[in-house]
Amino acid sequence: MSQVEGRNPVFETLKRGGVRKLLVVEGSTGDPKVKEIVEMAKRRGSPVEYVEKAALDKLSETRRHQGVIALVEAPGYVSLSGVVKKAGRTPCIIILDGVQDPQNFGSILRTADAAGVDAVLIPKKEGVGLTPTVLRVSMGGGAHVPVARENIYPAVKLLKDEDFKLVAVDPSGDHDFWEEDLSGAITLVLGGEGEGISPTLLEKCDSVIRIPMHGLVSNLNVGVSAAIVLYERLRQQNAKQGQRRA
Amino acid sequence: MSQVEGRNPVFETLKRGGVRKLLVVEGSTGDPKVKEIVEMAKRRGSPVEYVEKAALDKLSETRRHQGVIALVEAPGYVSLSGVVKKAGRTPCIIILDGVQDPQNFGSILRTADAAGVDAVLIPKKEGVGLTPTVLRVSMGGGAHVPVARENIYPAVKLLKDEDFKLVAVDPSGDHDFWEEDLSGAITLVLGGEGEGISPTLLEKCDSVIRIPMHGLVSNLNVGVSAAIVLYERLRQQNAKQGQRRA
Repeated sequence: MSQVEGRNPVFETLKRGGVRKLLVVEGSTGDPKVKEIVEMAKRRGSPVEYVEKAALDKLSETRRHQGVIALVEAPGYVSLSGVVKKAGRTPCIIILDGVQDPQNFGSILRTADAAGVDAVLIPKKEGVGLTPTVLRVSMGGGAHVPVARENIYPAVKLLKDEDFKLVAVDPSGDHDFWEEDLSGAITLVLGGEGEGISPTLLEKCDSVIRIPMHGLVSNLNVGVSAAIVLYERLRQQNAKQGQRRA
Repeated sequence: MSQVEGRNPVFETLKRGGVRKLLVVEGSTGDPKVKEIVEMAKRRGSPVEYVEKAALDKLSETRRHQGVIALVEAPGYVSLSGVVKKAGRTPCIIILDGVQDPQNFGSILRTADAAGVDAVLIPKKEGVGLTPTVLRVSMGGGAHVPVARENIYPAVKLLKDEDFKLVAVDPSGDHDFWEEDLSGAITLVLGGEGEGISPTLLEKCDSVIRIPMHGLVSNLNVGVSAAIVLYERLRQQNAKQGQRRA
C-alpha cells in the first residue's frame, strides 16, 4: 500500500480510479474542495473514512496532507522489455541518470503523463524511487506513467536493439534541441542535479542536444529541461501530421 | 541585505559577481565543491569568512545552506515602465497572477534568465516575493532577471499601449501554444497553482493558448508551462532568423 497526500494530488488520483480508501479529516467537508474530493471518491466507488487530524498528521509522510490522504495500491515497477513490446509506432522512453531530488522526479512524472511518455527508467542502484513525496508532486502522474527500475546499460542495449534513437539532453550538446528530429521512436536521457549524465552513458547516445542558455544561469532544472524537449517532440509530431494531411 | 544559500545557487551567484560576503563553514574546504566556491569568490573579489556550523544554521532561512551562504545586495524591484523603455525590439515580459509557491517562482526566474526574459511582473498585493527560498531555487536568476511588483491592471494597460501582445497560458485556451506567433513583443500571462489566471485578467488577453495534455493529469506545473512556452518562443525566433538568412 502507498499513499498520495494533498488536495490536488488526491483529487487527480481519485479521478483515474483505483483508490482503496480515502482518509478525510473529520468536520472538513464544509470546505468546497474537500467536498469535491469526497464526491469524486463516491463517484469512483472509493470508500471514505473520516479520521481525527492527529491521526492524519501521524500517518502523513510528506507533512503536507491538507486534510486528505488517498491509500492506493503501491505503484509497482514495470519491466522495460514489457513496455517496449507493447509500445506503439513512435514510443518515447525517458532515462533519468541519477536524479536524486523527489521534487524533480515527481515533476518529470507529471509532465511525462501529460506528454504521453511510454515509460520512465530509473537506475536500480541510485537515485530516488517512487516515494510519497514523488507521488504527491507528480499529481497522480506517478501512478499512471510506467516506471522501470533496472540496470541502465542492459536497458540501453535493449533500446538500441529495438531501434530507439538515444538522445541526451546535456549542456555539452553540439546543436540546439529544435534542430534534432525528435518525432520517431526515441529515448531521452537526462542527468541528475549534481553530476549530470555520466560520461560512459553520454558516449552511448546517438545524439547530444542542448537547450540554449541566454542568461547567467548555467543550466536548467532537469524537470524543466525534460518538459521543453518533450513538448518540442509533440510539436514536431503535430507538424508532420499536418504535412501528411496537406 | 539578502542571502543566497546552498552550493550550486551560491556558485551561480558568485559567478555573476556582486556578492558582498561569502560565509563558509569552518574546516569544509577539503570538499572539492566548497573549494571551487571559495576560489570563485576570490576570483570575483568577494571576501570570504569562515564561521561555525551552528552560526550558519542560525542564519539560514531555507535550512538548506549546505555549508555556504552568500550575502548579496537585496534584489530590489524595478519599475515596469523603466524596463519597457529600455527593452529591445522583441521584448518578453511575464505576468504571474497569484503564484504562491516559492519553488515555482524561483523556477520561473531561473528559466526566465536562461530564456532571455526582460522582466517578470508579480502583483503588489498577493503572491510570493523575492524570498531566500525563491533566490535559492532561482540559482542566481532571481538576482539577474528584473522583477517588478506592481498593480496588475495599470501594468496591463501600459503593456497594451506599448503594443505588447498579451498571451495567456491556460487550460481554457482554444489553440495549442505552437500555433501562436510568439516571436514578437509579447507578454505571457500565467496563473497561480490554485485558481489559475483570474477571469478579469484572462478577458484582457489578446490570445489564450493551451498546452496539450495527453494523459490523466489535468494541468502542468506553472514553472514547467512557462518553460515550454518560453522555449517555443526562442525556437520560432530562431526559425525566422534562419528564413531571413536563407
